[in-house]
Amino acid sequence: MKKIVVANRGEIALRVMRSAREMGIQTVAVFSEADRLMPFVQYADEAVCIGPAPSSQSYLLGEKIIAVAKETGADAIHPGYGFLSENARFAQMVADAGLTFIGPAAASIEVMGSKLAAKQAAQQFGVPMVPGTETPLRSLEEAREVVKKTGFPILIKASAGGGGKGMRVVQQESELEEQIRLAKSEALSAFGDDAVFIEKYVGAPRHIEIQILGDQFGNCVYLFERECSIQRRHQKLIEEAPSSCLTPAIRAAMGKCAVDVARACNYYGAGTVEFLVDEQLNFYFLEMNTRLQVEHPVTEMITGLDLVKEQIRIARGEKLPFTQESLQINGHAIELRICAEDPANNFLPDTGTLQTYIRPQGYGVRVDDGYEQGMDIPIYYDPMIAKLIAWGSDREEARERLIRAIDEYQVTGIRTTLPFGKWALQQQPFIEGNFDTNFISKYFTPQALDAKDEDAARAAAILASQLWKAAATAPQALAPAQVNGQVSKWKKRRTF
Amino acid sequence: MKKIVVANRGEIALRVMRSAREMGIQTVAVFSEADRLMPFVQYADEAVCIGPAPSSQSYLLGEKIIAVAKETGADAIHPGYGFLSENARFAQMVADAGLTFIGPAAASIEVMGSKLAAKQAAQQFGVPMVPGTETPLRSLEEAREVVKKTGFPILIKASAGGGGKGMRVVQQESELEEQIRLAKSEALSAFGDDAVFIEKYVGAPRHIEIQILGDQFGNCVYLFERECSIQRRHQKLIEEAPSSCLTPAIRAAMGKCAVDVARACNYYGAGTVEFLVDEQLNFYFLEMNTRLQVEHPVTEMITGLDLVKEQIRIARGEKLPFTQESLQINGHAIELRICAEDPANNFLPDTGTLQTYIRPQGYGVRVDDGYEQGMDIPIYYDPMIAKLIAWGSDREEARERLIRAIDEYQVTGIRTTLPFGKWALQQQPFIEGNFDTNFISKYFTPQALDAKDEDAARAAAILASQLWKAAATAPQALAPAQVNGQVSKWKKRRTF
Repeated sequence: MKKIVVANRGEIALRVMRSAREMGIQTVAVFSEADRLMPFVQYADEAVCIGPAPSSQSYLLGEKIIAVAKETGADAIHPGYGFLSENARFAQMVADAGLTFIGPAAASIEVMGSKLAAKQAAQQFGVPMVPGTETPLRSLEEAREVVKKTGFPILIKASAGGGGKGMRVVQQESELEEQIRLAKSEALSAFGDDAVFIEKYVGAPRHIEIQILGDQFGNCVYLFERECSIQRRHQKLIEEAPSSCLTPAIRAAMGKCAVDVARACNYYGAGTVEFLVDEQLNFYFLEMNTRLQVEHPVTEMITGLDLVKEQIRIARGEKLPFTQESLQINGHAIELRICAEDPANNFLPDTGTLQTYIRPQGYGVRVDDGYEQGMDIPIYYDPMIAKLIAWGSDREEARERLIRAIDEYQVTGIRTTLPFGKWALQQQPFIEGNFDTNFISKYFTPQALDAKDEDAARAAAILASQLWKAAATAPQALAPAQVNGQVSKWKKRRTF
Repeated sequence: MKKIVVANRGEIALRVMRSAREMGIQTVAVFSEADRLMPFVQYADEAVCIGPAPSSQSYLLGEKIIAVAKETGADAIHPGYGFLSENARFAQMVADAGLTFIGPAAASIEVMGSKLAAKQAAQQFGVPMVPGTETPLRSLEEAREVVKKTGFPILIKASAGGGGKGMRVVQQESELEEQIRLAKSEALSAFGDDAVFIEKYVGAPRHIEIQILGDQFGNCVYLFERECSIQRRHQKLIEEAPSSCLTPAIRAAMGKCAVDVARACNYYGAGTVEFLVDEQLNFYFLEMNTRLQVEHPVTEMITGLDLVKEQIRIARGEKLPFTQESLQINGHAIELRICAEDPANNFLPDTGTLQTYIRPQGYGVRVDDGYEQGMDIPIYYDPMIAKLIAWGSDREEARERLIRAIDEYQVTGIRTTLPFGKWALQQQPFIEGNFDTNFISKYFTPQALDAKDEDAARAAAILASQLWKAAATAPQALAPAQVNGQVSKWKKRRTF
C-alpha cells in the first residue's frame, strides 16, 4: 500500500493522513469547492476537487472518488466516518475496482446496517438483547404475553421508526391497550406503517460501547470500552475510557459479547459494538458501527494503539500483532466534542468565522481538528470543529487536565460547546462517575453557563489579540511596567 | 499550598503553571520588561514585573522574587531550571522566609554543586566513578602508578578547568610526561592554577541519566533513564527514553546507583543523576542535577507521571504514592529541542520575529513552548523556543511520529534546529540506536541539510499563509477548481 485516497474531510481526513504519513504512505485528498482552503487539502500529498459543497455532489459520489483513486495511482481508500463509511455498496465498488477498502467487507457492513439482521446474527451467539418482540405485534394478547416476561415499564417502538416517533413508554397494565393504539396511530401517520414492537424499557441507561479489532484470519480482540452517556438528542458530547461504572468482570463479559457480535458477521477491521447498560449493570446489544468512530482517540490514549494504523495493517492483510491477554488499560482519557453550537441556546448550530482560534498545549492534551484561525465554518457539514482529548494517570487527573485545556482553548467569532464541556466536567454526578444518558436533560439548563463570565473571557481574548498585534507592529505602543528598584505589581484578570 | 510564584520564564514557566492549574493552585509570574508580552505572563493568575531584561537585573534577583511571593500572598516558589534553580543560597533564603522551595533542601544542592564533594558523597555507596586520581597530581611516578590501574588512553584534566581547557588525551606511556607538562602549562595560563588530575579516557561514551524522585520520608525511586547522547558542544539536542542500549539488568543497576547518590545527599524532590556509559556498557557517575531538566517530558511520556505535580506533592510533605516495583516503562518517547539557531551555520544563535509559527498536532505529539506567532525571540535568554516530544508504542513509531511532527511544524522568520532534527532522526546510526556523544561531530556537516528543500518549504509556507489571508479577506480572489462532471485534479507540492 503506497498511496491512500481519504474519502472524507476536516478533522478525520487530517487524522487519517497523519497516521498514513507516519507509515510512509502517500495521501490523496478529495475535496468539495467549499473546502478548498481546508488544512486537510493542504496536508495531503495530492488533492483533487470532486464537486460543489453539497455532499450529494461531492463526498457521496462513490464513482468519482474511485475514479480519483485510479487516476492518482492510489491503491486504497479510507472512508473516515460518516459519508460513505457505512455504505456496503461503496465498499463493494471499491473492491470490484481492484482497490483496497480500509474497513470491513461489504457483507459485514450489510448485515450490521440492518438492525433486525444484526440482532438475528448476534442472537446465535447468545448476546444479550433488550427483551421484547422481534416481529411486528399482532394482538393485545401477544403484548400481554410478552409483558409477563419483560415486566413494566415497556417501550412500544414503531417498526419503521426513528427519531423517537411512534415511541411510547408504558408504565402499567392498565395503560397497555391505549398506548399500543396511540403508538400504532402515530406510526401510521409518521411512516405510513402501523407495525410496532415491544421492548423492555431501560429507564436510566448508560451508553457504553466496546471497540474491537479483527484481522482477516479470524483473530479478534476488544480494546475495552468507551463511556458515551453524555448525549444530547442522541448526539454524544463527552466520551471517556474506561467507564467509571464497569467492573473487570462485566468489562470482560461485554468484551466477549462484542467479539461474538463481530464473529457473527465475519468482521475484520476496526468496529464498535454499542450496548445499553442499566442501573444493575445488565447490558444489552444495541448495534454495531462498522467504521472508525469520532470518539476513537480515548481508546488510543489508554491502549497506546493507533487505530488508523491498525486499520491499514489489517486492510493490507497483516495479522493482529497482539493477543487479548497482552492488552491493558493505561490511565484514563476523556474527550469533548467541540461543535459550532450555542449551548446557551438549545445547542443551535452557529456559523461564522473563527476570529480567534488558539489551541491548548502541554502534557496529556490532544487536539484533533481541521480548521485554522481566520477560517469560516461551512454550513454544509457536521458542526464539529475539533475533538479535545485529555489523558491522565487516573480519571480525576484526566478531568482536571481537560478543564485546564478547555480554559486554554481560545475561540471567538463562533459559539461552541466548550463552556458546556467545562460545566459538565464540574458537576458532582460527573465527578463521581454517577450519570446516565439523561445527564443533560436532568441537570443542564442554559442558565447553568455563566454567560457573564463567558462574555468577559471573550472580550479579554479579543483585547489580548489586539494588544498582540499592536505590540508586533509598534513595539513602543505598550509602555513597560514601571520598576524603580521596587516591586511593581501588575494584577490582572485571568484571560484564559 | 494555594499559590506558587514561578521564578522563571518562557516554556518552563508555562509548563509549571499548567500543572499547578490542574491541581487548583494559583500562580504568580515574575517577568522582565523584555518578557511582558510572553504567554507565560498572560497565563499566570497574577504577574509582577521585576526588572529590566538582563537576568542579573530580574530573574536572578532572589530577594526581589521572595518579596513578590510575600506581597502576593504566595506560599511557595518553583525555580524551574537555570536561573536560581541550583542556587543553594536562594533555596535557603526561601526557606528562611517561611516559604516552600519546590526542590531539594539547600544542603543537598550545596553538596551536589561541587563535583568533588558529590563524588566523595557518592563514593561511600560504591557508585562507580571514572577511575583516576581525585587529588591534584604530584609527580610523574604517581601518574604512572595510576595508569597501571586505569590503562591507556587517559585524560589529563585541569583541577580548576572547564570548557575543555587544560584537557589532554594521552594514548600511550611515551607521551605521558610531555602531555602532563603541556596540560599543566595550559592550565596555569588559563586558570592561574597548574593542578591537574588523571581520569581514564572514555572514548565514545553515551550520556545517559537517571531520573529520581524522593520524598521527605526517605523513600526514593528511579524513573528509568534518558538517553542524551545527541549533543553539540555539551548541549543536548535530542533526548529519548528509554535508551536503546541498556539491558534491564544494567538499567536496574544504574537505577540503584542513582538512588544511592540521592541518598548520599539526603535528597528529596525530582533530581537527575548523570552517567557516562562506555561501549562495554560500563557506567560511571558524572554529576547530579538537583532540579527539573529540560528533557523531563520523555520520562513523563513513558511513565505517565507529571513530574511537576510530583515535585509539588513532595514539597508539601506528601509521601511518594508508588513503589519502585509498581513503575514500568510504557512505549518510547523522543524529544527535539527547537532552538533559534542555524544548524547550517555552526548552530549560531539566530534572532528575529516568528513570522509563521504553526505547531504540529495529533496523536502522540506534545509541544512545550513559550511563544506565539508574531513574537520576537529576545536576545537576552536561552535560544530554546520549544520542546517537541513524540510518544510511540515503540522506538520506531516515536521516531516516525517525531519526523511527521517536524514536517508539520511551520516556522519562518527565524532559523531553527528543526531541519537538523529531521536529518538526525533519519540517519542509520540513529535508526539503529547505535551512537554516542560524537554523533554530531562524526556525521553532521552543514551540507547534510538540503538547503534547497528548506528554502522551498519556507517559501511555500509563506505563500500558503498569504493565500490564507487573501482568501479570508476576499473569498472570490481564489477561483474554485473547475469541475464539469469530470474529475479535475489539482496536483500540488507538499508544503508541510
